[in-house]
Amino acid sequence: MLIVGELINASRKAIGTAIEKKDEESIAKIAKDQSKAGADFIDVNAGVFVGKEPEYLEWLVKTVQTAVDEPCCIDSPDPKAIEKALAAHNGVAMINSISLEKERYDALMPIIAGTNLKVVALCMSDEGMPETTVDRMRIADKLVNGLLQNHIPIENIYVDPLVQPVSTNNNFGIEFLNAIEQIVATFEGVHTVCGLSNVSFGLPDRKFLNQTFMSMAIAKGLDGAIVNPMDKKMMANIIAAEALAGRDEYCMAYLKAYRADLFVF
Amino acid sequence: MLIVGELINASRKAIGTAIEKKDEESIAKIAKDQSKAGADFIDVNAGVFVGKEPEYLEWLVKTVQTAVDEPCCIDSPDPKAIEKALAAHNGVAMINSISLEKERYDALMPIIAGTNLKVVALCMSDEGMPETTVDRMRIADKLVNGLLQNHIPIENIYVDPLVQPVSTNNNFGIEFLNAIEQIVATFEGVHTVCGLSNVSFGLPDRKFLNQTFMSMAIAKGLDGAIVNPMDKKMMANIIAAEALAGRDEYCMAYLKAYRADLFVF
Repeated sequence: MLIVGELINASRKAIGTAIEKKDEESIAKIAKDQSKAGADFIDVNAGVFVGKEPEYLEWLVKTVQTAVDEPCCIDSPDPKAIEKALAAHNGVAMINSISLEKERYDALMPIIAGTNLKVVALCMSDEGMPETTVDRMRIADKLVNGLLQNHIPIENIYVDPLVQPVSTNNNFGIEFLNAIEQIVATFEGVHTVCGLSNVSFGLPDRKFLNQTFMSMAIAKGLDGAIVNPMDKKMMANIIAAEALAGRDEYCMAYLKAYRADLFVF
Repeated sequence: MLIVGELINASRKAIGTAIEKKDEESIAKIAKDQSKAGADFIDVNAGVFVGKEPEYLEWLVKTVQTAVDEPCCIDSPDPKAIEKALAAHNGVAMINSISLEKERYDALMPIIAGTNLKVVALCMSDEGMPETTVDRMRIADKLVNGLLQNHIPIENIYVDPLVQPVSTNNNFGIEFLNAIEQIVATFEGVHTVCGLSNVSFGLPDRKFLNQTFMSMAIAKGLDGAIVNPMDKKMMANIIAAEALAGRDEYCMAYLKAYRADLFVF
């Protein structure tokens, strides 16, 4: 399972403040904590700072890369901000995300074409958010083929089917889960990734729902997650579900996590 | 989700003792507790008492039916014991289970043919326990078609793909999960059911693994479970996974369980 640590996001108050103050120490600490907790990529997002986003995103990349060895997941809807952050990044970054929204697609594709970057392909288009599995497959098909045509290898593509809340429509969860399964079955070698906390929007005990949904998504083939790696329950869920899905040889990762008391909540 | 309460099983020491003493009060209490906790069927099993099983099973059925309104799930590999228990049962019982083991199949089929009983079709044959999805589908195909030919309606058939431990073979979990999915896709209208605690055999923190596996199985289509309905965490997992799988209109069952403090562990 590829873990993208989600904590360095300016929409979180403490992070927003740290970014504005250029507080390197605070950002470095959160990067290190996530690295230690198992993050493979450190997400960086400065999306709330309109106008200053490119500058702040570049600063975040430099600050994170000074602190940890893991590469960044550069998280912005703005291709200009992504380009600036990429120029400052060492190693293979992940781009979060390209979508089928025409403006975003046309501006971002030339930046990533022919690179070995890892690319999140978000199932969103100018027609809005997808609701059904069919909606998602229609978008995923165009995105994956567009990326392949632009020489992004299939194994560097991470399709995000876009979670929607079950409180809005009871079928939004299963339509997402079935999309995971179809994406994996349709595009051989492709990866999937998502932030799934939206599934529980509007319901009580959201963390419990999110953990449960994670196990369900792994059963359907999800192999990447944008999560808080310091959420021990969530990480325990991922490790247990991976062992149960046959992705953990001799259950070694599960046993190691157990011995490290990861399952003591 | 159909919940079969598993607690009245003679292999549990206190139950074995209660059966031997014909302690009606103890058995009635466990039946009532499970009924209150959401069991749709009360499993009765006296399998450890060789020779006395038919007599004890009949007594269990009578005792349980005096205590609660839910029907019994008559749990025995012995068709003679099942027949005796059935004769004492009022209402529509569930039979746990027919399998493809020739002796069991040939003796049990005449007892259940043409009835409206609910029947667990266990994926086991004289060749032993199934390991792969293909093994399970081969057995399920013969069992389901055999039951249909004997006038058991498809909606009364509950296929149990038989869980095997991931500690023995890392793929045993995913092979089981994929079997659930294929069974549901192949036999329209059929149900699935299982006791899934074997999946965690030999590993630490078994309850946590079992809960996680339950969510995964529900994502794949499982709609029946033989569980301890008084295990609040397990029941919470089932209710949450059902809401996320689109089986809980307006998330009413989830919200009701939340208000009843089911999620306070």
